[in-house]
Amino acid sequence: MRVIVALGGNAVLRRGQRPDADVQLANVRTAAVTLAALAAEHELVITHGNGPQVGLLAAESAADPGLTRPYPFDALGAQTQGLIGYWLQQALQNALPGRQVLAVVTQTLVTAVDPAFERPAKFVGQVYGREEAEKLAAERGWQVRPDGPHWRRVVPSPAPQRVVETRLIRRMMGEGVIVVCAGGGGVPVIRDERGRLAGVEAVVDKDLTTAMLAEALECDAFLSLTDVPHVMRDFGTPRQSGIGHTTPHELRALDFPAGSMGPKVEAVCRFVETTGDMAAIGRLEEAGRILAGTSGTIVTPGGRWPLTSTL
Amino acid sequence: MRVIVALGGNAVLRRGQRPDADVQLANVRTAAVTLAALAAEHELVITHGNGPQVGLLAAESAADPGLTRPYPFDALGAQTQGLIGYWLQQALQNALPGRQVLAVVTQTLVTAVDPAFERPAKFVGQVYGREEAEKLAAERGWQVRPDGPHWRRVVPSPAPQRVVETRLIRRMMGEGVIVVCAGGGGVPVIRDERGRLAGVEAVVDKDLTTAMLAEALECDAFLSLTDVPHVMRDFGTPRQSGIGHTTPHELRALDFPAGSMGPKVEAVCRFVETTGDMAAIGRLEEAGRILAGTSGTIVTPGGRWPLTSTL
Repeated sequence: MRVIVALGGNAVLRRGQRPDADVQLANVRTAAVTLAALAAEHELVITHGNGPQVGLLAAESAADPGLTRPYPFDALGAQTQGLIGYWLQQALQNALPGRQVLAVVTQTLVTAVDPAFERPAKFVGQVYGREEAEKLAAERGWQVRPDGPHWRRVVPSPAPQRVVETRLIRRMMGEGVIVVCAGGGGVPVIRDERGRLAGVEAVVDKDLTTAMLAEALECDAFLSLTDVPHVMRDFGTPRQSGIGHTTPHELRALDFPAGSMGPKVEAVCRFVETTGDMAAIGRLEEAGRILAGTSGTIVTPGGRWPLTSTL
Repeated sequence: MRVIVALGGNAVLRRGQRPDADVQLANVRTAAVTLAALAAEHELVITHGNGPQVGLLAAESAADPGLTRPYPFDALGAQTQGLIGYWLQQALQNALPGRQVLAVVTQTLVTAVDPAFERPAKFVGQVYGREEAEKLAAERGWQVRPDGPHWRRVVPSPAPQRVVETRLIRRMMGEGVIVVCAGGGGVPVIRDERGRLAGVEAVVDKDLTTAMLAEALECDAFLSLTDVPHVMRDFGTPRQSGIGHTTPHELRALDFPAGSMGPKVEAVCRFVETTGDMAAIGRLEEAGRILAGTSGTIVTPGGRWPLTSTL
């Protein structure tokens, strides 16, 4: 099969861990064991989150006395593609001697008329008190909003339209290369009135980008891998229970938190609705079992997987 | 012809300029005009320096209160490959509609027994007073040395042995892709006793890496493009004069400053000695004239260029 894997940010840096380089590299090396097992049996494309890393770089850039303005999010996102791409590339090369692995810079096209630009909603970076947040907003042109008891910067999260480098990714895949791409959802760009690409201050959801890329690459399976074993029904209540095999229709009938599980559910449903193929959400370490149908929340048009069992 | 271009760091950020993202992107867009003209006539591979960018990120990382230890130079170098790679890729895509352009993460293999590891000599990052430099050295395990009136950190600059991703770069070139690679000389890595790659605290000279890559890719010409029109004979004296067409033998008989022009001269001489092909050092904006033989310091085995003039 042709399989695309979206690695959650926690595959590189777990909640509560120090963001030191050695900590992140150790996590990546652990993730590579699972990814290498997938690559031994399937064509593999890998995308990844960058939340903690882009937050760290944004804070560093904002604190840099040598800069007039902090780096914009397209530049920061590109830096995290280099960083995490390097770690993944090296760890996979070490885990799969003789295989070709390549991390590439990828831009994700969005449209300037996306309503998300009118209503920035994606929290980024550190938390502030209200007063400091409003001061920074005035100084730097940020938009800020309350996030629970704190205030944080928000940026637009427009819908991904296309990965600009899709053709090259498909070509490399066809030649047996394991491609690492679309890190952090891709560097967000728009086309101006003359067709030229330009970066924008936004963050694209990595699962939505991956679903779209999965369709363009004609992947047979899209795995969104994270640190929870299933999507939960009645999450946070005494009745909560893990969802196993399901359909987009069943999954869309439930409610999920906008910040974390919501985009993942939306992404897997869209891929299955559009292609009729299989998508799943589950634990990174159980990727093999997910493909075998014995772990994770598995979404197919008919709610069954593997398809051979329907013969 | 198959042409490899090494862009000097000043193509992205000129001395004295603010290191803001918009300033660097504007410079890259200017450089892309020249590069696009080359790409219209030749197969093109592009490498680039990262001195100012890696210095900025190293300072930001060292000042980050969230980190126990600043990021090592392999991770910082990978970040600059993402950043500068993104800017170059986008600017070239805009300048060359319909062409495929791809910036890739590349590692440069060095050997752990390189004498450079015993004697770190490459200055990196900001300047300090002696006392502060020695305090930082003790705290962070840095090596520091006097650089004129100031003190600075030094890291090893080992000799590049091979770009790990050479095979993929060659394949993409063969398919008409303009590849951006080996940024900052490549992310420095060694192989351990079991053959596994691991990053090292070092900086590889980008011109030496480019010369080696040029040979591996069987390039016909290697252009090291910077902001000076020629290599100078008797540099800094009243007798100084620009060198036009020359041979490796003539060039090696002269003395050059170790920090700046030295590695460029070494790199172009090595490429010409090894391959018998053409290499040159000159101004970025004059790349076309350099290939025509009417600008720059042009190095060939016989001191003549273009070769057709010898018929």
